[in-house]
Amino acid sequence: MNGRNLKELSAADSLRRLADVPLGRVVFTRHALPAVRPVNHVVIDGQIVIRSSAGTILSAEVAAVEAVVAFEADELDVEERLGWSVVVTGFAELVQDPGEVARLRSMITPWVTGQLDQVIRIRPQIITGYELVPG
Amino acid sequence: MNGRNLKELSAADSLRRLADVPLGRVVFTRHALPAVRPVNHVVIDGQIVIRSSAGTILSAEVAAVEAVVAFEADELDVEERLGWSVVVTGFAELVQDPGEVARLRSMITPWVTGQLDQVIRIRPQIITGYELVPG
Repeated sequence: MNGRNLKELSAADSLRRLADVPLGRVVFTRHALPAVRPVNHVVIDGQIVIRSSAGTILSAEVAAVEAVVAFEADELDVEERLGWSVVVTGFAELVQDPGEVARLRSMITPWVTGQLDQVIRIRPQIITGYELVPG
Repeated sequence: MNGRNLKELSAADSLRRLADVPLGRVVFTRHALPAVRPVNHVVIDGQIVIRSSAGTILSAEVAAVEAVVAFEADELDVEERLGWSVVVTGFAELVQDPGEVARLRSMITPWVTGQLDQVIRIRPQIITGYELVPG
């Protein structure tokens, strides 16, 4: 199989693709160490919205101060070696307004059981995306 | 659909699953910011081995000093909402010995074209894995 080339995607195309998949990976720093968790997400008003529980390390990081995080999603076909990946870097914050929390919570059904009563919103600052195309 | 529960996997099971998939995501810190890149990998002698190019930001981070990174892989079925994810945290280093570089390079065929003449080896320190099971 020929190698693939990486074709850069526009920010708008990247965010559109990210919005089209139900699952991504939130990347953050914990005690100066890199950390990553798969999570299901939605994109609302250009922001990435995820649910979390107060007990998780992600919520602990974000609750203290607005945190810089990355969010990655991809659709990669391991047979064809084609697909795309998108990485968003931005500011994550716990949504505080109770009405806004209720509105956003209703728009995401987490896969896992549990309270997941917190809502985290990521405001994109940098959006990069690549598509694997035949070389 | 009922929510899923998270069942913890043993370190050995986690590493075995990670070795069974061709693709993961390496997570690192760049200029104090979280960064993430999809990459294809192999597991050799209990270590995660990936290829990179001298020009990439990952290589720049790892070349300077042995770097702490995370490596995530998963197989998640978005229809059934079942699957697993594994996160390894460990030390990444550029392999320096030319013979070892040649041996390891021959064991990974990168998907993307380009030189990718560097080999990075990640020594796991912490291995965690979860399986999504019916709740």
